[in-house]
Amino acid sequence: MFAFEIISKTDTTRARAGLIHTVHGNVKTPVFMPVGTLGTVKSLSPEELIDAGVEIILGNTYHLYLRPGCDVIRLFSGLHPFMHWDRPILTDSGGFQIFSLSKLAKIETAGVTFQSHIDGSQHRLTPEKSIKIQKCLGADIMMCLDNCIRYPSDKNEAEYGLDLTADWAKRCKATWLEDGQNALFGIIQGGMHRDLREKSVDDIVRVGFNGYAVGGLSVGEPKDIMLDIAGFTLKQLPDSKPKYVMGVGTPQDLLELVSLGADMFDCVLPTRNARNGQLFTQNGTINICNSRFKHDTDPIESGCTCYSCRNFARAYLRHLYLARELMAYRLNTIHNIHFYIRLMEQMHNAILKNEFEAFKTDFYEKLERGI
Amino acid sequence: MFAFEIISKTDTTRARAGLIHTVHGNVKTPVFMPVGTLGTVKSLSPEELIDAGVEIILGNTYHLYLRPGCDVIRLFSGLHPFMHWDRPILTDSGGFQIFSLSKLAKIETAGVTFQSHIDGSQHRLTPEKSIKIQKCLGADIMMCLDNCIRYPSDKNEAEYGLDLTADWAKRCKATWLEDGQNALFGIIQGGMHRDLREKSVDDIVRVGFNGYAVGGLSVGEPKDIMLDIAGFTLKQLPDSKPKYVMGVGTPQDLLELVSLGADMFDCVLPTRNARNGQLFTQNGTINICNSRFKHDTDPIESGCTCYSCRNFARAYLRHLYLARELMAYRLNTIHNIHFYIRLMEQMHNAILKNEFEAFKTDFYEKLERGI
Repeated sequence: MFAFEIISKTDTTRARAGLIHTVHGNVKTPVFMPVGTLGTVKSLSPEELIDAGVEIILGNTYHLYLRPGCDVIRLFSGLHPFMHWDRPILTDSGGFQIFSLSKLAKIETAGVTFQSHIDGSQHRLTPEKSIKIQKCLGADIMMCLDNCIRYPSDKNEAEYGLDLTADWAKRCKATWLEDGQNALFGIIQGGMHRDLREKSVDDIVRVGFNGYAVGGLSVGEPKDIMLDIAGFTLKQLPDSKPKYVMGVGTPQDLLELVSLGADMFDCVLPTRNARNGQLFTQNGTINICNSRFKHDTDPIESGCTCYSCRNFARAYLRHLYLARELMAYRLNTIHNIHFYIRLMEQMHNAILKNEFEAFKTDFYEKLERGI
Repeated sequence: MFAFEIISKTDTTRARAGLIHTVHGNVKTPVFMPVGTLGTVKSLSPEELIDAGVEIILGNTYHLYLRPGCDVIRLFSGLHPFMHWDRPILTDSGGFQIFSLSKLAKIETAGVTFQSHIDGSQHRLTPEKSIKIQKCLGADIMMCLDNCIRYPSDKNEAEYGLDLTADWAKRCKATWLEDGQNALFGIIQGGMHRDLREKSVDDIVRVGFNGYAVGGLSVGEPKDIMLDIAGFTLKQLPDSKPKYVMGVGTPQDLLELVSLGADMFDCVLPTRNARNGQLFTQNGTINICNSRFKHDTDPIESGCTCYSCRNFARAYLRHLYLARELMAYRLNTIHNIHFYIRLMEQMHNAILKNEFEAFKTDFYEKLERGI
């Protein structure tokens, strides 16, 4: 049931518009996937996500495995009914959080042993187990367990990481093939070394997946290196498959990466920044706490059609935020998610009309104009 | 434009069903008013309130005066547009919060001097100023500034308090009469002393208001005293006017007070308890944290038509609550508000059908049956 079709390509960039088919519906690409760590995109209802145009969300295997646990989610036949979301879900493998959140992670060929960041309890994740958990979650797109290397990394370290990633990818695929349901994506590693990225692409594409992700980015490297390595890696990947850049990024990052051929993104930026009062607009970000908004009767962004901008003024949002009212986080998140989704739709449509370059110019002009 | 009509009375109790008319629409009584302290009923959107059947909310003058301040709300021509709520709003006078929240409150005949609970800044509230603030907020129903006495209080203290309340009531009315917009309610004090309650009713009814509130309850007194004093006071008040018991209470309290002739209520109980994981059902309250709900695929209350019960199971709500997810507070609040509003609707309808006694029996039977 999983399929990817390219609808339109651009002449002067590698940007393309496409459509992903899943059993839970279609997803237009390029697409941004809001992060729903614990079976909820923080502060938003499923209806609000749909209202913002969200077509797919990301769930975190590490977090859901620890809380509420597969025994609970299995009772509901998966994450979709559990969280009342009937559109596609992509789940990560749990690897990234083990490396970034858990304590005392011990990596071996067999798998990873780690301590929960919540209660210190000991757990073990193998490539096989990661896929089994993701199947239990009922993910439309599952991700292979990979070994994400820290930045900066020396070449030996990066090489060890990508060899492990290749071995695990084969084992993930073998477990996935037991029923072959939905889709499984492979992940490219290789640090910031072009030759290792090339090797990783060879390894992972040889195993063969429904799509490919560029992992190991946004780990502290300078922006130009991120874009260089992402662009290099995206180019190596088969054009017939969706290409996913994990954990990135700002609106500018998304625009540049789409130009370089990326189709899919996830990032906590719009949701986390919203909860910190940082709101995105076409002319840059604003911090709603700022005293200049105290008497401001305008919406966050004039012309924005999100629920928050249609009904509330900056002065109200500032008041809610300063009072730490729960509605502040929600109204801010609605706006930021709407902004990201609209940006992706605009890119999709610009590619269809072969106006992507013009859109890009316009995007940077608005940004430079400022608030 | 403000009016109150009684639609139906009961034979065997003092319960009555009525309709309050305001410029922002009608309100069926008996009515429960969710508390929207800072221009938001914590965690809920206006649409969610409407969806739950909320016809009127309460705004807190003390809180809104301090944050965001009248200068901000005036720019929006009142609280309704500021918070995107177009149904009626009742505002309290600020008196209760000054006594309970602020520091170093100094009460004189002229008014009250107090320090903000937020930043310690010094402020002064007079009866005149309270009404002016409530007019700035655009309240459909304003409340007189009263002097709420602590419990227990000796008779001298209670007598001083009610004399001050009577003096302030006259001054509030004089300020209100400058335009006579919307409605102004008087408040009865007198502690737990029947004779002083009687005197306070005389004083306040002589001034003459659009409705009357029984204040100074739910301040620590035993439940039987609260019901006794409320019942006694409600009986003294003119039947042609709405009767409002302030700051009360549990579902049982509401049922008993409606039996005693009360038409209006406000309380933080359903919203605050929701944020503490306490959920109301016809068979009693449950704490969603309880491990017995870990694998529970049922809704909070079967048969409940609220958004939370229609779409989510106890196991999901427990998971969200334990993970401190923002959606937990919202889904819990939606259910509790829906429960309270439905209870009031059921009472209203039972009175119309002259089935109030039967409803009451049924209510207690379900409660005794337990979860």
